[in-house]
Amino acid sequence: MPRTFVIQALTTEKALGEILLQGWVRTRRDAKGFSFLEINDGSCLKNIQVVMDHAAADHLFRDVNNGASVEIHGRHVASPAAGQNWEVQATKVLLIGLADQETYPLQKKRHSDEFLRTIAHLRPRTNKYGAMARIRSEAAFAVHAFFRERGFWHLHTPIITGSDCEGAGEMFRVTSLPLDHKSLPGSDPCADDFFGRQANLTVSGQLEAELYACALGKVYTFGPTFRAENSNTPRHAAEFWMIEPEFTFGDLVGNMDLAEELTKSMVRHVMEHCTDDLELFGKFVDKALLADLDILLAKPFARISYAQAIEILEESRRDFEYQVIFGSDLQTEHERFLAEEHFKQPVIVHGYPRTIKPFYMRLNDDGETVAAMDLLVPRVGELVGGSQREERLNILTDRMDEQGLSRDAYWWYLDTRRFGTVPHAGFGMGFERFLMMATGATNIRDVIAFPRTPGHLEF
Amino acid sequence: MPRTFVIQALTTEKALGEILLQGWVRTRRDAKGFSFLEINDGSCLKNIQVVMDHAAADHLFRDVNNGASVEIHGRHVASPAAGQNWEVQATKVLLIGLADQETYPLQKKRHSDEFLRTIAHLRPRTNKYGAMARIRSEAAFAVHAFFRERGFWHLHTPIITGSDCEGAGEMFRVTSLPLDHKSLPGSDPCADDFFGRQANLTVSGQLEAELYACALGKVYTFGPTFRAENSNTPRHAAEFWMIEPEFTFGDLVGNMDLAEELTKSMVRHVMEHCTDDLELFGKFVDKALLADLDILLAKPFARISYAQAIEILEESRRDFEYQVIFGSDLQTEHERFLAEEHFKQPVIVHGYPRTIKPFYMRLNDDGETVAAMDLLVPRVGELVGGSQREERLNILTDRMDEQGLSRDAYWWYLDTRRFGTVPHAGFGMGFERFLMMATGATNIRDVIAFPRTPGHLEF
Repeated sequence: MPRTFVIQALTTEKALGEILLQGWVRTRRDAKGFSFLEINDGSCLKNIQVVMDHAAADHLFRDVNNGASVEIHGRHVASPAAGQNWEVQATKVLLIGLADQETYPLQKKRHSDEFLRTIAHLRPRTNKYGAMARIRSEAAFAVHAFFRERGFWHLHTPIITGSDCEGAGEMFRVTSLPLDHKSLPGSDPCADDFFGRQANLTVSGQLEAELYACALGKVYTFGPTFRAENSNTPRHAAEFWMIEPEFTFGDLVGNMDLAEELTKSMVRHVMEHCTDDLELFGKFVDKALLADLDILLAKPFARISYAQAIEILEESRRDFEYQVIFGSDLQTEHERFLAEEHFKQPVIVHGYPRTIKPFYMRLNDDGETVAAMDLLVPRVGELVGGSQREERLNILTDRMDEQGLSRDAYWWYLDTRRFGTVPHAGFGMGFERFLMMATGATNIRDVIAFPRTPGHLEF
Repeated sequence: MPRTFVIQALTTEKALGEILLQGWVRTRRDAKGFSFLEINDGSCLKNIQVVMDHAAADHLFRDVNNGASVEIHGRHVASPAAGQNWEVQATKVLLIGLADQETYPLQKKRHSDEFLRTIAHLRPRTNKYGAMARIRSEAAFAVHAFFRERGFWHLHTPIITGSDCEGAGEMFRVTSLPLDHKSLPGSDPCADDFFGRQANLTVSGQLEAELYACALGKVYTFGPTFRAENSNTPRHAAEFWMIEPEFTFGDLVGNMDLAEELTKSMVRHVMEHCTDDLELFGKFVDKALLADLDILLAKPFARISYAQAIEILEESRRDFEYQVIFGSDLQTEHERFLAEEHFKQPVIVHGYPRTIKPFYMRLNDDGETVAAMDLLVPRVGELVGGSQREERLNILTDRMDEQGLSRDAYWWYLDTRRFGTVPHAGFGMGFERFLMMATGATNIRDVIAFPRTPGHLEF
């Protein structure tokens, strides 16, 4: 008999008759001679209720309990109970895998996020983290669908890299030398290594994406990136996923449009395809979540210049931890104030001072600002950072000199400006930040399956 | 005026009138008073012909040459020339970015793959590598579409890991300690490091995927994996992408079915969506390619046991470099013989001896073989390797002991067998190997944008 999934059994229009279910017991309630089982198989948030006659389950029925895996043969019928359309009257219940009730860590109570992080291998078996995993999966698909519809080609940029995208940022080093390796005194310690030179984990695929954009027109990457920042905050992880589009014959306005469309498209997709999962977060995690997502979709994002942002922040008379100074980068508290309190919706800030932005951002005609933009959103602050790229070779190399970067090391990057250079733009969206915004989760450790943070490398 | 992409201009049913094109000049042929330009913008393999009156391009027309970026305003009309339906009669040609003909490395001649690897940042501007990039992008999308349709959730498994999936394989180490860091004599050299313990780059997301499959039912990963093998062959890269599904309530036969369906679905998708790009490979790279792909789609894959495979190889009386011995793993030459010469189509070999396979593969009732399977394909050898997983806790821990693995280190993995264990299965497909099979490319360096191999970390 072909298997029926819980999502099919719950959403069907008509009764399915005899079916085969396979899944896990989420809860069990006993009555005289029979039990009510709630069965989940991961296909959706909701469980289906199975009525198990103790005679049908014979001697094993005591073990058919929370966490056990089961195979159920039964009749799919309209449910007399309130709040559910369908239930299954079991004719046979097979216990596949026991979960010892004494030792199974997921008891029938609410567990804290902190505790669940210590059993990250089991937490997707809870409603909340199952929902999170499905939302993450659908949001990832939304990214691919969005770009493909718009003619962007998906590119895998390298993870191990010899370059440091921004001339800054703490990078992890990659080596194949044994821990006790000693290089000869005075010799290059990387000479004996796998690549014969220092190798790092990428912080961004942008530069390589630019290379391909200058050939294929429009590309995007969606891959893991790394920061060896030793900061234990709810917003930082050593390993996270980034979405980085690059497109040619485009400018800053096109870039802002693309970031806004992408964000809305991802939210729309998740609302449509993970309705129940998202409602769980609206109900139990953040009561304002769903209304805020509606606002995000309904209105065009606000767009202001950096100078305007500074003015708003100064006029707010807020007692920020970091002082607002024209010429400094915005801090998360400033970003969140703008999105959450002032605009009460996403806002794009553009035209930052050249001195606080990387060399590849296009210099504006004023000579003082660059064609940068950050998309700030409630709950998170910066969701997207991007810019029009500097396509003029001489200005680009001047900026590299200014920031002490070696032209020789970037010969391949500069080639795109030497040969058929074009105006182009792109951005990076932190995928985990998107998920925090979309679910209301306040800790990055709870939106990625197995978070990597200082001192934490479990699973 | 909105931009028209070359693919639109070439595939339209009716003339588009006045249009704006933006792209790069691929070739130019001069006639008296005008030139023919072939323009490409990455949206497809083919170029569109633009007729440039030298008067329309004024003094710059000499520089509108191979590699230059241009903006073209003109009239889209039916072409009088043979072999093309449409062309553009330019009314204005703007030179956006020059490509100096003296120094531009991509001259109008055939370049060797070896040379093009040294300019991997420019090679996507050639027909062949542009086509490869589009095929890769579409094949990746096909993976996501395939699994999503079948109810698999996409999971991001960690890249930095504390475990070694197979208890074997040379792994890269990840550290944030400076090159000249000296740990105190006798102390754990990893104690000062970012994670406080040894950190490696993942060789597989399988174990983590199993954790999630045991909660969500069916999952897959599609991410980068790493091997620090110091082997310079056309088939090995230090960094490559893997597709790894895991599904519960499934067995070896279901696993073989899934691998076959996935492979066919990816081939079908690429044939449908990259017809021109694929034809290029059929024409210039491997004349037998398209016929072989047709065979792959048309017939069920052959399925034989490991014992049968050994018999066929022995009876072949071939002079293999590696001797065929019952109880040893098959070598690439054996695998290719089976797929290319004996079956002349993909073949799945199943039921390998337990002694040559990892601990997590399910022990068959004979006690001697495991429920493993490899999918072997022409041109490549092993495309997919997988198994039903050992879901019985006691047998699994015995196997771990046998192979000298620490039960304590894998406590989280063993928990899935302690709590609600289920029969489940999965496999890994090397994405680059798929691309080699699908394009006929014979070197892995040519199917990934920026290959990482011993001594090579450019771009």
